[in-house]
Amino acid sequence: MPTTPYPLLQTVNNPADLRRLPRTELKALATELRSFVIDSVAQTGGHLSSNLGTVELTIALHRVFNTPHDRLVWDVGHQTYPHKILTGRRDRMSTLRQLGGLSGFPQRAESEYDTFGTAHSSTSISAALGMALAARSKGEDRHAVAIIGDGAMTAGMAFEALNNAGVEDCKLLVVLNDNDMSISPPVGALNRYLAQLMSGQFYAKAKNVGKNVLKNAPPLLELAKRLEQQAKGMVVPATLFEKFGFNYIGPIDGHDLDSLIPTLENIKSLPGPQFLHVVTKKGQGYKQAEADPIAYHGPGKFDPSVGLVKPATPPKPTFTQVFGDWLCDMAAQDQRLVGITPAMREGSGMVEFHRRFPERYYDVGIAEQHAVTFAAGLACEGLKPVVAIYSTFLQRGYDQMIHDVALQNLPVVFALDRAGLVGADGATHAGAYDIPFIRCIPNMALACPADERECRQLLSTAFAQNQPVAVRYPRGAGAGIAPLQSLDPLPFGKGEIRRQCSHTATDNGPRIAILAFGTLLYPALQAAQALDATVVNMRWAKPLDIELLLQVAAEHDLLVTLEEGAVAGGAGSAVLEALAAAKVQRPVLQLGLPDVFIEHGDPAKLLALQGLDAQGIEQAVRMHFQLPHHP
Amino acid sequence: MPTTPYPLLQTVNNPADLRRLPRTELKALATELRSFVIDSVAQTGGHLSSNLGTVELTIALHRVFNTPHDRLVWDVGHQTYPHKILTGRRDRMSTLRQLGGLSGFPQRAESEYDTFGTAHSSTSISAALGMALAARSKGEDRHAVAIIGDGAMTAGMAFEALNNAGVEDCKLLVVLNDNDMSISPPVGALNRYLAQLMSGQFYAKAKNVGKNVLKNAPPLLELAKRLEQQAKGMVVPATLFEKFGFNYIGPIDGHDLDSLIPTLENIKSLPGPQFLHVVTKKGQGYKQAEADPIAYHGPGKFDPSVGLVKPATPPKPTFTQVFGDWLCDMAAQDQRLVGITPAMREGSGMVEFHRRFPERYYDVGIAEQHAVTFAAGLACEGLKPVVAIYSTFLQRGYDQMIHDVALQNLPVVFALDRAGLVGADGATHAGAYDIPFIRCIPNMALACPADERECRQLLSTAFAQNQPVAVRYPRGAGAGIAPLQSLDPLPFGKGEIRRQCSHTATDNGPRIAILAFGTLLYPALQAAQALDATVVNMRWAKPLDIELLLQVAAEHDLLVTLEEGAVAGGAGSAVLEALAAAKVQRPVLQLGLPDVFIEHGDPAKLLALQGLDAQGIEQAVRMHFQLPHHP
Repeated sequence: MPTTPYPLLQTVNNPADLRRLPRTELKALATELRSFVIDSVAQTGGHLSSNLGTVELTIALHRVFNTPHDRLVWDVGHQTYPHKILTGRRDRMSTLRQLGGLSGFPQRAESEYDTFGTAHSSTSISAALGMALAARSKGEDRHAVAIIGDGAMTAGMAFEALNNAGVEDCKLLVVLNDNDMSISPPVGALNRYLAQLMSGQFYAKAKNVGKNVLKNAPPLLELAKRLEQQAKGMVVPATLFEKFGFNYIGPIDGHDLDSLIPTLENIKSLPGPQFLHVVTKKGQGYKQAEADPIAYHGPGKFDPSVGLVKPATPPKPTFTQVFGDWLCDMAAQDQRLVGITPAMREGSGMVEFHRRFPERYYDVGIAEQHAVTFAAGLACEGLKPVVAIYSTFLQRGYDQMIHDVALQNLPVVFALDRAGLVGADGATHAGAYDIPFIRCIPNMALACPADERECRQLLSTAFAQNQPVAVRYPRGAGAGIAPLQSLDPLPFGKGEIRRQCSHTATDNGPRIAILAFGTLLYPALQAAQALDATVVNMRWAKPLDIELLLQVAAEHDLLVTLEEGAVAGGAGSAVLEALAAAKVQRPVLQLGLPDVFIEHGDPAKLLALQGLDAQGIEQAVRMHFQLPHHP
Repeated sequence: MPTTPYPLLQTVNNPADLRRLPRTELKALATELRSFVIDSVAQTGGHLSSNLGTVELTIALHRVFNTPHDRLVWDVGHQTYPHKILTGRRDRMSTLRQLGGLSGFPQRAESEYDTFGTAHSSTSISAALGMALAARSKGEDRHAVAIIGDGAMTAGMAFEALNNAGVEDCKLLVVLNDNDMSISPPVGALNRYLAQLMSGQFYAKAKNVGKNVLKNAPPLLELAKRLEQQAKGMVVPATLFEKFGFNYIGPIDGHDLDSLIPTLENIKSLPGPQFLHVVTKKGQGYKQAEADPIAYHGPGKFDPSVGLVKPATPPKPTFTQVFGDWLCDMAAQDQRLVGITPAMREGSGMVEFHRRFPERYYDVGIAEQHAVTFAAGLACEGLKPVVAIYSTFLQRGYDQMIHDVALQNLPVVFALDRAGLVGADGATHAGAYDIPFIRCIPNMALACPADERECRQLLSTAFAQNQPVAVRYPRGAGAGIAPLQSLDPLPFGKGEIRRQCSHTATDNGPRIAILAFGTLLYPALQAAQALDATVVNMRWAKPLDIELLLQVAAEHDLLVTLEEGAVAGGAGSAVLEALAAAKVQRPVLQLGLPDVFIEHGDPAKLLALQGLDAQGIEQAVRMHFQLPHHP
């Protein structure tokens, strides 16, 4: 039998085991845990840099706090692999982010140690405050701990929570895991301020300056003391977090168990809301990841001894890249274009735009609300903002889209990446709702390109309008139709027929038309061959091409709507509304995402499971309309 | 001819006139302007306290800044009556908040001086930063000024904007109008901190303490200076706002033109983002309003010499009151209930709940994002949170509803006041979108009570579920059906037939069924008499009572859906979806709010204009289905 490479780690099946280990063995445990994380992510893909940064912090928190009785709420949650490994899920790490396997984020259903499901950033302080106040009101003696990164601290939501928590007498600890990086490099005043705090010259020096200068003048020592006290009382509270009512401790080294554990133990006994500033390093302990934490933020599978290697054949360009190229080309053509991202430079494909047009690039931090209204302000002055934002994160800027952009009918382009199912990230990141939630807003338009070429064309179309327009496109690559160089727009609000049903109603069964919104056009075209169906590329969920719809409805017996988004209120419902308004009655089958949260897994498999591949579409049509199989 | 009571004010038709007045006459102008505001609001109703607080600030800003070339962005905007009066709209103030009249908020379409439409709070810094950076990029020399209240500063969005603005080199001024009050009394750490700043002992004292103590010891003066400088460099930046990169000035008296005008003039010449802390008093200059700024926040018409008087006959109880009573009664019965409001204690009817259950009442400030996730945290621990939030403001907590509540299927009750048209507040406050934006979220349920009694019953029903449920009800009073004492729930997801069509299809025209969602049930019942239609009280937009729907569809020829909400993706679309899924074809007419923003005006008139009164419903049905009039 081979000796296990994780002799200590394999003895830890839950945090109680960890708490029973001699204190002296924890460092060795950290070493094993770090290796396990690297080996595990190398096999499955997933988040790496952030998890290497939280190894010691995770050990220290489970050591000092009585989990699961005490509550740990991990902000964002992609840094919880060490936590998962230490809380009974070590042997299931090989299933991470796969269908039926462990989630890449904390999930209440997965473990009692996952007290709150996270994935979108900056929710942890609010949730932990709720838990702490619930404990207080129920007379239960427990701590609630929020562990939040410096990137997540830029979101307004975190400040809303700090503002509330700071005046409550409860057992809340906020651990700021300061690794100087969200996914993109950090931006803004807060980050600059944290750097100041970390420089170490801040509070400590101010406190001692009197003493040092005056050490040879004893009578003055008292004066210096008085000055210091007065300064403390009036100029200090020193840190931002103290101004919010927290007791601030730190910064301390988040990779040093000898400072983490005693500090946490001390904090445990302090009354009122506590704020611990911990400095960690993304990628800590794995050289390649330390050197390039962005590349190792969310790698695919790799060989740990080699690191990431560039694939020999470049992968198919993604919609993200199509957007990034379009952005640069349109910016070169139109001076008014400005690009805005809420901390998703890489994810949204804006690295090249940033490089070429730094003056017109705005990374506002994790701040979707601000991103949208900031764009509205720019648009008021005649600029043409393009806000690149994932469908799921636009939920954070929804009010701003309605109240600041649409109501004022400002020409802002929303480039909605990750629309539809997103695969390994799962339900929290699904861009499933944007069609219904945008379609109901007056003045908004919403385009659904069928492929890469059309994505570029519809972005150009959106940019040419004098009103707000969103363009939604999925994660990854599409049918692979290469974009054209041109920046010419397509007609606004107009679809096209891609395939014509070849039989008439009388000879060979009902005439079927599939109305596809977005990339599912391609499986629809496949299914249509077997069904001899007409296929319409609708292109726009709003405005709907009603003329085309009514023409198709008149010429067909059965209609099928198809979208990678929630059926409830989606583009198919827009079709139903238009038909009802026109008093046209046709049987309609709506295909799309059902009214359930869909978990993580391989995107193609997930779509197939929902019946949204060619075979599924064909089957659904035959079943619903009771058509014979293989006609 | 009577002498005008506003001799100076009537000479000011725009800010240029104001800038031409001798500096010495501005105080008199302020006095006139204040009287004009009181007289004007007394005639029209509207916001009073906040506008009395901004009289001098408005004069000073238009005096010092070259408006409209320089941009003023008024946060929330209900404090802009003085601004409207000074920017050419004096004589139209009598039309305020009435159909076709001036808006109660800034509106870009109304005046070039209204640079950004506001109404929801905390958007101004984002918008003004957009304007300032647009000016910078276009090489235009202009200032952008955001005027924001201390209440609005608690919203995370304001911090997101500060975090961005603080690192930009641009001509941005943020004026914090600190009147120690949002609509409800202020809460949270920020407010406590502002009070500290205002105590005046903060920075000034710290700065001078060395000098005072040491004034008789010349050689030490230099030391003191050095200490002070070092302290400034290291312990200071003194204020929160300086930590965000702003140059902080203040606090100064916002009713003293002699400090406002010179200070603003100085600030104008300073480089980089500036932050001016101005202290004003809500209701300033009108004793009754000073004494009770909450009552005078948004009064109806009144006699200025008398003030507000209690109406002789109490008005019909509003849905807000029905909710407030239910909340108290349910709290008395169930220990687990906690009530949460984002700064809307009065507006949401929670004053009595706060009084009776202070330990279970949470006003989180203007912080909808936090409010929702905080509720999720409480629910995780077995409490039963009720989040009272206007439909329009839930747009701010949309992501949190999806990601933190619905995805985890936590039993949070959302009490959505102001669903539908809201009257005088206009398009910015319309609760028009909640049905589509909630209906598409898995695990969510959404009830639409038809009247006061049912509102209480459906709140009890919502509270009894082990999943998230929203209950939407409109502003003001309904049909006046008195609530029952009981806290018994109604069946979940079930509607009821309220009126049966009395003729059969063959004898006297088609059989019509009106499916009403919410309070429009009552005009539907009236319209149904003339149409001899069946009327169904659907009660739930989600889950839809499909059994009832299919029964009604089977027994009728024509269906009409009716809701006070956007038709696009609304409850009527849920009906269409269900019929299509069940392969039932019926002509359906969808009545509800059209796909346009509907401006302010009398609520009943607005509904009638949209054809949503009894007469309009009858007419629409006859027209759409081409029925003869008066059958």
